[in-house]
Amino acid sequence: MSIEEKLKSLDLTLPASMAIPDSMALPFSWVNVRGNRAFVSGHGPQNEDGTVSGPLGKVGVDVTVDQGYELARKTALAILGSLQRELGNLDRIQGWGRVFGMVNCAPGFTQQPLVINGFTDLIIEVFGEEKGRHARSAVGMAGLPLGMAVEIEAEVLLID
Amino acid sequence: MSIEEKLKSLDLTLPASMAIPDSMALPFSWVNVRGNRAFVSGHGPQNEDGTVSGPLGKVGVDVTVDQGYELARKTALAILGSLQRELGNLDRIQGWGRVFGMVNCAPGFTQQPLVINGFTDLIIEVFGEEKGRHARSAVGMAGLPLGMAVEIEAEVLLID
Amino acid sequence: MSIEEKLKSLDLTLPASMAIPDSMALPFSWVNVRGNRAFVSGHGPQNEDGTVSGPLGKVGVDVTVDQGYELARKTALAILGSLQRELGNLDRIQGWGRVFGMVNCAPGFTQQPLVINGFTDLIIEVFGEEKGRHARSAVGMAGLPLGMAVEIEAEVLLID
Repeated sequence: MSIEEKLKSLDLTLPASMAIPDSMALPFSWVNVRGNRAFVSGHGPQNEDGTVSGPLGKVGVDVTVDQGYELARKTALAILGSLQRELGNLDRIQGWGRVFGMVNCAPGFTQQPLVINGFTDLIIEVFGEEKGRHARSAVGMAGLPLGMAVEIEAEVLLID
Repeated sequence: MSIEEKLKSLDLTLPASMAIPDSMALPFSWVNVRGNRAFVSGHGPQNEDGTVSGPLGKVGVDVTVDQGYELARKTALAILGSLQRELGNLDRIQGWGRVFGMVNCAPGFTQQPLVINGFTDLIIEVFGEEKGRHARSAVGMAGLPLGMAVEIEAEVLLID
Repeated sequence: MSIEEKLKSLDLTLPASMAIPDSMALPFSWVNVRGNRAFVSGHGPQNEDGTVSGPLGKVGVDVTVDQGYELARKTALAILGSLQRELGNLDRIQGWGRVFGMVNCAPGFTQQPLVINGFTDLIIEVFGEEKGRHARSAVGMAGLPLGMAVEIEAEVLLID
């Protein structure tokens, strides 16, 4: 089954490219391919139309862990959307390398992994254990752009 | 001298795999090998039995810089333990690439490098200047999983 | 035009190697080359003599966004200085891969991208769209070494 068929079978839709507020020019690439490596910029959770998905704010204060999990899952879909637009075909992905999961949180919050599991669970579900496995950190940030609760960057390896 | 012999000569013991609280499922790889690259997930300091090593909390408030140095050193041993279990043999490591050192700290703390030196000093001691040299950042986080004071992720290059 | 000629045409000067306070020993490489990859350690803004460039502190409180942009631009020059010393010649750079932009900020600050644009704009100006494009994250840290307002790490690909 192709990744696209897999996404359909799971009833998952990839969102449009991120809709950036005019005040926030972004002169970089969402996905930067160099040779057989795809560097994925920090993405946040998006709605299907590409707008930033809330709730915004700090997990543990403004956002529950369960909401954070859902936001991390949406971030995975946003990244898959960017990869599909850049690569043309998600089957060009040989495997996931590294995932850096950032949680906007107040001092004292210690459950970052439970939030970023929303990303990891979806990637493993879509790509399977072999292609989907990745090294990961899940850590707490003092702030994220636009007040997003979750941001994730990654590196993916491509078929030569 | 092999790395294992070197570790013995320095009287260093690698801890068991991290003992995770049941409430904190971790669906990712501690070390993810893709081709000749080993992506190392964020690790924290561990005791020999794999339990998280304290003191927990924020360096500069709950944890002194000297204690933080020791925790970063233990984090290096934890990472070497994960690499040994994944690679079978630490002599498969061609050299260290990148090290990202994260210090759980209160705003105002500015000595992150002195903490992460505990990691760098040990890696250079074990691997020598040529294999052990690495690019590094040492920065302050708003929070880390389980309240750990230090977390470090890395990339290591393997012999082809 | 070589990168060096381009820098001259833009009237840009690369600073000296970072002048570290004696109390802050740094046992790692500013740039670590492994094969055709150059891992760039976290750098901060520098003056031409290599001393840390202020203002120090938190963007949004002690440092304005415009000042932060200028500090990120100086961080780009500091990194180019380190790359030139390590590589001998900046034309050995095939292209930029990944940029991780860290902003020292108080909780509630959400304009990290506007700060790190100071880095991205300069890199694109010097290297052009093809070599200069990079994946990027721009995020908020609880603290940075020496109280620097900006720190950036990166990976650059070299011509084989």
